[in-house]
Amino acid sequence: MGEEETKIPKEELIRAIDARDGSALLAAAEDIHYADLAHLYENLDDEDRDFFLKTIGPELATDVVAELPYPLIEGALNHFKPAQLRVLLGNLSDDDRVDVFQVVSEEAQVRFFSLLGPRDKELTRNLLKYEEDTAGGRMTTHCGRITADMSVKQAITVLRRDKDSAETLSRIFVVDDQARLVGKIRLRDLAFNTWDTPIRDIMEEASEFVLATADQEEAARTLSKYDLVVLPVVDEFHHLLGVITYDDALEILQEESTEDIEKIAGISGEQSEVSYLNTSVSTQYKRRVTWLIGLAFVSIASGYVMYRFNNILGQAKLLALFLPMVVAAGGNSGGQAATMVIRSMALGEISTGNALRVAWKETRTGFFLGLSLAVAIALFISLVLPHLQKTTGSAFDFAHLALAVAIALTVQVLSATVLGALLPIFARSIRLDPAVVSAPSLASTVDVSGMMIYFTVAGAILHL
Amino acid sequence: MGEEETKIPKEELIRAIDARDGSALLAAAEDIHYADLAHLYENLDDEDRDFFLKTIGPELATDVVAELPYPLIEGALNHFKPAQLRVLLGNLSDDDRVDVFQVVSEEAQVRFFSLLGPRDKELTRNLLKYEEDTAGGRMTTHCGRITADMSVKQAITVLRRDKDSAETLSRIFVVDDQARLVGKIRLRDLAFNTWDTPIRDIMEEASEFVLATADQEEAARTLSKYDLVVLPVVDEFHHLLGVITYDDALEILQEESTEDIEKIAGISGEQSEVSYLNTSVSTQYKRRVTWLIGLAFVSIASGYVMYRFNNILGQAKLLALFLPMVVAAGGNSGGQAATMVIRSMALGEISTGNALRVAWKETRTGFFLGLSLAVAIALFISLVLPHLQKTTGSAFDFAHLALAVAIALTVQVLSATVLGALLPIFARSIRLDPAVVSAPSLASTVDVSGMMIYFTVAGAILHL
Repeated sequence: MGEEETKIPKEELIRAIDARDGSALLAAAEDIHYADLAHLYENLDDEDRDFFLKTIGPELATDVVAELPYPLIEGALNHFKPAQLRVLLGNLSDDDRVDVFQVVSEEAQVRFFSLLGPRDKELTRNLLKYEEDTAGGRMTTHCGRITADMSVKQAITVLRRDKDSAETLSRIFVVDDQARLVGKIRLRDLAFNTWDTPIRDIMEEASEFVLATADQEEAARTLSKYDLVVLPVVDEFHHLLGVITYDDALEILQEESTEDIEKIAGISGEQSEVSYLNTSVSTQYKRRVTWLIGLAFVSIASGYVMYRFNNILGQAKLLALFLPMVVAAGGNSGGQAATMVIRSMALGEISTGNALRVAWKETRTGFFLGLSLAVAIALFISLVLPHLQKTTGSAFDFAHLALAVAIALTVQVLSATVLGALLPIFARSIRLDPAVVSAPSLASTVDVSGMMIYFTVAGAILHL
Repeated sequence: MGEEETKIPKEELIRAIDARDGSALLAAAEDIHYADLAHLYENLDDEDRDFFLKTIGPELATDVVAELPYPLIEGALNHFKPAQLRVLLGNLSDDDRVDVFQVVSEEAQVRFFSLLGPRDKELTRNLLKYEEDTAGGRMTTHCGRITADMSVKQAITVLRRDKDSAETLSRIFVVDDQARLVGKIRLRDLAFNTWDTPIRDIMEEASEFVLATADQEEAARTLSKYDLVVLPVVDEFHHLLGVITYDDALEILQEESTEDIEKIAGISGEQSEVSYLNTSVSTQYKRRVTWLIGLAFVSIASGYVMYRFNNILGQAKLLALFLPMVVAAGGNSGGQAATMVIRSMALGEISTGNALRVAWKETRTGFFLGLSLAVAIALFISLVLPHLQKTTGSAFDFAHLALAVAIALTVQVLSATVLGALLPIFARSIRLDPAVVSAPSLASTVDVSGMMIYFTVAGAILHL
């Protein structure tokens, strides 16, 4: 992207806002994509936002508002007078309008709804029936739609009438007289065929579709898997309700990836639509504090094991040197396994039916990982440690210490790996998001087992 | 997706392969999307793969091969005789063909290259100049391309000639007589304008483009930000070289998300193109073992701190109860902060210039998190613990223990949060991927500081 070229209009825009210069603002705004205008808006203070929105007017403001992070939308709309708001809400594409109604307060919902025309009212009411995160909640009803008995010429006439409202015409869907989806056709097939060709003869089967009640992620994955620009959304009677487009799929998959990454790190709650820098400290705090405090109490269990076995540490002081290692190795290896499995589930590669295959694969992987780690550390203890630590007062030899640490590491890594891989699958099987198995909660759990394994093995081998 | 409908042809296909029944296989394959055929292929053994590929023939095989995970491509191509291979390689779209050359062995590169026609040879050689992960390495040169001085009729004639080879015609690019990008137009604008309209009058400015040498992620983010179906790729003289399409963007962003998720979990190396279940145990092992062993040695530092301060644990046994908590709270809060920042950088929300704002935000967030945790645990120690733990032999009172743990928790969480947020920014500033700051490596680091903070604070307050 020509970063250096786009920077200048942006600076001019900021200057125009600071100077409250309406015509300079309009001139600058003309050269900036509305996605970038929305980004600039995010970083303005409230007075500047007011001036900006009132100056660009409801037409351009429609495009900007549609690009805003959800929490900023209601505030932006409140800058407009009812007459302007009526234009703006009418201009919004139907899926963006539904998004607005889904994110504003109830008071605003009622007020905004009263400003809609009768057709938009009905459309919005129908679309609001679908949950926000379903295919129906994300779809637009504006799509190229023709019937099989039309000729190419009739089809072009119909589509020309709709061309401004249709979200995309690169795929056009063919319905029967009951409005059921029967086929699809590309605009290029219309452009490159004679005008009397019947649509029926050139349409293809519409074999990819999604139910309106399906999860939005399923719709996005289908679009992605089959490289579709547009995916039709149908009801249980196969009526064509609308379409989901490639840009929705991009957005959905990015949102889901962010959500998974955050969950794995033990960050809870809804992913904020606002960018990191514009998210308040209190929101950041709220999303992290629950896990932190919960995990802290889980850690008391590890502490209790340590407290109970404290006499072993007193008798063989060198054991302390490897306690954090055995404990952490479980968290690390379990976290790796859980992450692999959670991501594979998100990409649709693993389902709960694969639990046994996953368990067997991770048993072998975990065993070899644990063994490698055990050998590396045993060598360190037998060969390096005696030179570093000549003045130890411990009563046992390094070979026994090496053996104890090695056995504990193998058992700890193997069990944590298998547990880390299976917990997300178990979560899915009881209809939870696999990513609830966050890496920190897994680590806190295997910390406890790690302490017990280490003290038990060391106690037995070193006769403590 | 009509899961129940698509299942049956898939089962028929498997049965046909098992029975070595060629015509049944062909009949079943006809009803299955090639993306699904590629997925089925992945799960076949080598003999079945051979029968499958030879039966479906080079035409359909082209589509299937283009969808295969990279590591399986060379093996698949080796099932074909040179004459068939020539057809298959010629059928591939130019970006898929370049992908093939980028992933096969050198021996196969030479052999496959000799089978290409002269035009494909030159095209492939040109495209191979670009690194695999740049816009140039991902682009296809097949795109709708017309000049500004054409009429709509001339443009349609040119495009009709290219219509099968062009990846997408929903955006057509306009070049000048030097092949420099000057504008863009939509197919619908051709379809809905009179035949004598000059292209110059109806074309728009092509203000979004990407340099061929730019990172593929930049191209994908631009496509996503501006909701584009097609993004033109140019060289430094603004010559139109090719396009990147929405489906490339989807793939790139999914790959990058997976890579980030894995890196954060301490999984190294190239993300495998093969699905989890088809990845060998040895590959899984190799990607995880380096971090595990490296982190284990880092943990010896924590162990050393514990070993040195062991006498404090001996004097005040109850301190052991909260040691794992203080230590883990640092890893957890640091991991949360690092994850937020790494993801925000991946989404382009934060750059290195924002380091101070991030530091200030995380200082406040970290302070409040640490304080909340401190209060919760101090209350637990003062109010709950005395009832659970009446027979303690320790010489100090619970109020002092509560104070020591609370101070240690606050310092540990605050410092780990700020460190976790700043390390990814620091990594970016020295041109490393921010996600190298994996959660486990951060945890192992703050484990050491956590131990030292805890023992120092406790030693001072409890006079040990």
